[in-house]
Amino acid sequence: MELSFLGTGSGVPSKGRNVSALALQLLEERGATWLFDCGEATQHQILHTSIRPRRIEKIFITHLHGDHIFGLPGLLGSRSFQGGDTPLTVYGPKGIEAFVETALLVSGTRLKYDLEVMEFVEGTVFEDHQFVVTAQLLDHGMPSYGFRIVEKDLPGTLLVDKLRALGIRPGPIYQQIKQGKMITLENGKVIDGREFVGPPQKGRVVAIMGDTRYCEASIELAKEADVLVHEATFGAAEAQLAHDYFHSTTVQAAEVAKRAEAKQLILTHISSRYQGDMCDKLLEEAKAIFPNTAIASDFMSFSLAKKK
Amino acid sequence: MELSFLGTGSGVPSKGRNVSALALQLLEERGATWLFDCGEATQHQILHTSIRPRRIEKIFITHLHGDHIFGLPGLLGSRSFQGGDTPLTVYGPKGIEAFVETALLVSGTRLKYDLEVMEFVEGTVFEDHQFVVTAQLLDHGMPSYGFRIVEKDLPGTLLVDKLRALGIRPGPIYQQIKQGKMITLENGKVIDGREFVGPPQKGRVVAIMGDTRYCEASIELAKEADVLVHEATFGAAEAQLAHDYFHSTTVQAAEVAKRAEAKQLILTHISSRYQGDMCDKLLEEAKAIFPNTAIASDFMSFSLAKKK
Ligand SMILES: [Zn+2]
Ligand SMILES: [Zn+2]
Repeated sequence: MELSFLGTGSGVPSKGRNVSALALQLLEERGATWLFDCGEATQHQILHTSIRPRRIEKIFITHLHGDHIFGLPGLLGSRSFQGGDTPLTVYGPKGIEAFVETALLVSGTRLKYDLEVMEFVEGTVFEDHQFVVTAQLLDHGMPSYGFRIVEKDLPGTLLVDKLRALGIRPGPIYQQIKQGKMITLENGKVIDGREFVGPPQKGRVVAIMGDTRYCEASIELAKEADVLVHEATFGAAEAQLAHDYFHSTTVQAAEVAKRAEAKQLILTHISSRYQGDMCDKLLEEAKAIFPNTAIASDFMSFSLAKKK
Repeated sequence: MELSFLGTGSGVPSKGRNVSALALQLLEERGATWLFDCGEATQHQILHTSIRPRRIEKIFITHLHGDHIFGLPGLLGSRSFQGGDTPLTVYGPKGIEAFVETALLVSGTRLKYDLEVMEFVEGTVFEDHQFVVTAQLLDHGMPSYGFRIVEKDLPGTLLVDKLRALGIRPGPIYQQIKQGKMITLENGKVIDGREFVGPPQKGRVVAIMGDTRYCEASIELAKEADVLVHEATFGAAEAQLAHDYFHSTTVQAAEVAKRAEAKQLILTHISSRYQGDMCDKLLEEAKAIFPNTAIASDFMSFSLAKKK
């Protein structure tokens, strides 16, 4: 599981930072990549990474501002042109379907794969045996959502050596033991399956916020998350500007991470007014409140190791 | 008058060539830049040039394929964000208005300048005292147009030295002389205004084609043009592919230039299958038929000197 930052700027592209897009690479987990937001030229950024468009399985959109969606039609089209043929689902707020459909229709783009566009409201956006993704409304000029991506716990592995030591050979019985049942062996002995299964492997939690002011929903979404990706469009000195434009400061992002008891904070959506050394200052402001903070840059990757 | 190539690739962006966009810089002529097509990340390309988005006055769209229009919403939005406040007109085939309006509406983009979107059919697309732009339908999988941009002839300059030598002093009479009228001087002498006006300065002609197969309309549009920009998606060996996908080969583009008696041909919209040295071969194929040919690359500029 790895986060790859494709666009970490705010509003308009600059030479240093493209507009918003973030890949959650789940190659080991499910051979797939999920995208969060898709600003213009996300497909161009991807050209400079190891990400394969055909592997993109899901695209989650936090909100409909242009710097978060204008790369979507091009990416969808190129994925088809380059041979992508597996289904892809776009999850976004109300309006995303009209945008995608109009762009594809007007441009005569015919996709060679099944595209589903799902408009979500708050709550569970996606769930399968492996992951559950929930969304909550944040506080922005238009409906903007944060996502909590929860990897489900993996059951513990069967302690085969311990079973063999007792002379219990592989067979259908292993399946029952793995389920933690009480089992009566052929020799009449009763064993407790739970004693032959290792501890479950805790799933990881990633919280990715859309553009927002400081708000309680962010804290709920980020509760004890392994990593929280939060916007910090402005430095601490620009709290008024941040409020006026429905954005957050470094300090507000750090406050969210602290109150949520997240393990790691990554700041993104940095205004182009902050260049070079000025970004170090942004980072310091956040670290003073939440030490385990990083500031994202385009093409930065962040690995989330499996839990013990 | 200068052509600046912003995207010279075909279909999808590659590391070497972005999707289609071409700037006609008219800074000296009218302090403005016109764009022809606006593929995704055109605004990103512009960041690496001296082009100022606020100076973009008109955007002409040849056809609605994604690689020619998906950069439009982002460019329009960023132009406003960066302080552009003068009117801008987009000219495009039927459907362009629905695309632009939906993208701006869904994304909540409010422009701080007047945007007009005009859907054209064949004929005169735009005309003022300086320029006339006409469009003709080409032969592509969807309606695709070529543009002929004609700079109107400038009237000759008044031969002031010659007038002064005759003792004719500056005054309202100069205006009449410049118009080439017969004038009776105070001393009763009659002069022919046309004898005191230099030759008119011929306007320049630029022909820019959308995606197309070889067709007669291209030849009409490019008739005696100073420069013809024509697609050459494929090399000469791929005439069948070119036909199947409604594109042209190098040889076909050169044939258009030759039959039109254009002065210069520039090949663009090059498939990403041609890399490095292979592009030299494309150029040779065209030059064998029309020697005055160049092959465009991203960020290439081509100046059109004023005529004598
Ligand atoms: Zn944003
Ligand atoms: Zn094209």
